[in-house]
Amino acid sequence: MFSERINKLKSLGEKINIDAFFITSEPNIFYLTGFKPVAIERLEALILPVYGEPILIIPKLEEEKATMQSHIKEIRTYTDAEGPLKLLEEVLPELNLTRGTLGVEGSLPFKFYTLLKKAAPKLNVKDTSEAVSELRMIKSKYEIDLMRKAAEIVIRGIKSGVDALSVGKTELEVSFEIESTIKKSGGEHVAYNMVLSGENSALPHGITSSRKIKCGDAVVIDVSATYKGYFADITRTIFVKTCNQRQRKIYNTVLEAQTNAINEVKPGVRAKDVDLAARNTIKKAGYGKYFIHRTGHGLGIEVHEEPSIHAENNLILKPGMTFTIEPGIYLAGEFGVRIEDDVAVTSSGCKVLSSSLTKELIVV
Amino acid sequence: MFSERINKLKSLGEKINIDAFFITSEPNIFYLTGFKPVAIERLEALILPVYGEPILIIPKLEEEKATMQSHIKEIRTYTDAEGPLKLLEEVLPELNLTRGTLGVEGSLPFKFYTLLKKAAPKLNVKDTSEAVSELRMIKSKYEIDLMRKAAEIVIRGIKSGVDALSVGKTELEVSFEIESTIKKSGGEHVAYNMVLSGENSALPHGITSSRKIKCGDAVVIDVSATYKGYFADITRTIFVKTCNQRQRKIYNTVLEAQTNAINEVKPGVRAKDVDLAARNTIKKAGYGKYFIHRTGHGLGIEVHEEPSIHAENNLILKPGMTFTIEPGIYLAGEFGVRIEDDVAVTSSGCKVLSSSLTKELIVV
Repeated sequence: MFSERINKLKSLGEKINIDAFFITSEPNIFYLTGFKPVAIERLEALILPVYGEPILIIPKLEEEKATMQSHIKEIRTYTDAEGPLKLLEEVLPELNLTRGTLGVEGSLPFKFYTLLKKAAPKLNVKDTSEAVSELRMIKSKYEIDLMRKAAEIVIRGIKSGVDALSVGKTELEVSFEIESTIKKSGGEHVAYNMVLSGENSALPHGITSSRKIKCGDAVVIDVSATYKGYFADITRTIFVKTCNQRQRKIYNTVLEAQTNAINEVKPGVRAKDVDLAARNTIKKAGYGKYFIHRTGHGLGIEVHEEPSIHAENNLILKPGMTFTIEPGIYLAGEFGVRIEDDVAVTSSGCKVLSSSLTKELIVV
Repeated sequence: MFSERINKLKSLGEKINIDAFFITSEPNIFYLTGFKPVAIERLEALILPVYGEPILIIPKLEEEKATMQSHIKEIRTYTDAEGPLKLLEEVLPELNLTRGTLGVEGSLPFKFYTLLKKAAPKLNVKDTSEAVSELRMIKSKYEIDLMRKAAEIVIRGIKSGVDALSVGKTELEVSFEIESTIKKSGGEHVAYNMVLSGENSALPHGITSSRKIKCGDAVVIDVSATYKGYFADITRTIFVKTCNQRQRKIYNTVLEAQTNAINEVKPGVRAKDVDLAARNTIKKAGYGKYFIHRTGHGLGIEVHEEPSIHAENNLILKPGMTFTIEPGIYLAGEFGVRIEDDVAVTSSGCKVLSSSLTKELIVV
């Protein structure tokens, strides 16, 4: 699987006329080698010549793990005291990379870009994120199965959160219940686990706090976690004790927008068409200016990846692409509603990976 | 507090002769404004002219939160569909930043560097991470108190993990116990929560797994979590049922190295002296080549920050600096031992923030 991915990437590199890829992001290293780096601020790089064998550059303390987890034959290390510059100055000439073009990722930290320029001043550095994205965007059946399993685990978590919701409990207590269920169900990394109640629910990226849940609150529960490295990312909005006319109207508008967007998904459609299906529904209902983000984002080994489902993206959807559909309406100082599912494009439409979690309006 | 920090940074900017800082990392934005961005892949930037007022550039969906959390008066937003380029093209000329020098962070993603170059091709971009680090490295009493509180919470977590250790339990089960205790004790973000047993304990950055704990295992428990945004990071190594001669010898060597390094910490000493105090102790005992990382790293609002305690760092320690002391010995395929505490440099020596957790050799 890994050598197939590496070979595909090499072909893409040939097409875009670069000499090598310089892959430094943890998800891309994992995707291409099976090695799970824990780099934090240190450089870990897979140098992948288009015509040649890859070399993995890592800190000494990761050597044993990289040897166990990856199939890369050539692993070179540096110590914390040495730093990676000397090693780059050795390896780049070995690979004939003192000139020519090196493809880097958009996420490459500026300090490593500077290091590359120091090690090989005549080397041309270019953002080739799109090549790796192109590869990663199309998921195999194996990958989609892992995402479906991740969705099952997150759904279990959200259900336990809904069960735990009651007046007087804090957002943090409910979110802990969710995390606990996810970990017990085989979930690994919980990227986020938001429980936002009352006026906090009007913040798309609010911080789960010790706010106590009140009667009449809308509660946005947005949870993302991995199974075997693959993410699910699901949101539901629940009402506590009672749901007034306005809350009900907004909930139904968001649900209609979400349903329309899901119905739009099939091969050949543009990402923007999916966004606009949701956006126009919300506009028509008179809440256009309260839908303040895109309709969705790609999902896989990162919680946000390509494709981005926004109103200017002309990308054509293809089978195997996986992303979220998550319109929302946010009334600052009052409340917000968001409903989010994960979908995979199929040959004729799409499959909702999180379909087993109800979207009926729930009052607990 | 925030305007004091901003003013200090402006003075540093004046000294290093730049026109403005372009701050994009989440911890630095939080440190300077109180705003907790959740950017993921989106640009969030504090543009701080050395002579002028700061402007915060954020995605539309973060506007409400930024207005609530920060004191920055000028907040400009872009939508997901627009992207940030147009906004940069507007704001940079307004601030007279089409020429001159902009100070960026080492962590600035290459894609945003490219964006800056597109928005202002004649603007000189320079890594000025050190200025912000210089500021952040010296903690106030308020900050050290938060770190001490974080240490108390992590210690509670580790103790519950030690209590939960028994033959047949998985590493994941023990780590879940720790996480549960931390969250119930007021801990917020758990950056890592490693439970590495047997041969896994020989991996400094191993992955907590479903491996079942066996009689005779060394178990490395390394936990890091925040309280009000400030980190503790503590490690202990425990033995299960029995501890053989070799394990005991290595444990005592690591403990001696750690004690010697802690005793070395005082103002005026270089970071490398602290590293060498640990390193030489381990070398003398004959295990030099198995101590494969630096002795410690700075700690604060990031789990790794400045100062780095490695063998080539000539930085002079000053009161208010906070970092970990965590030597280890790793015997690949067999086991590893690491002992880690958090210290704060005082006017005459140092205080160990995690001193209430015993370092006696424990067999459970």
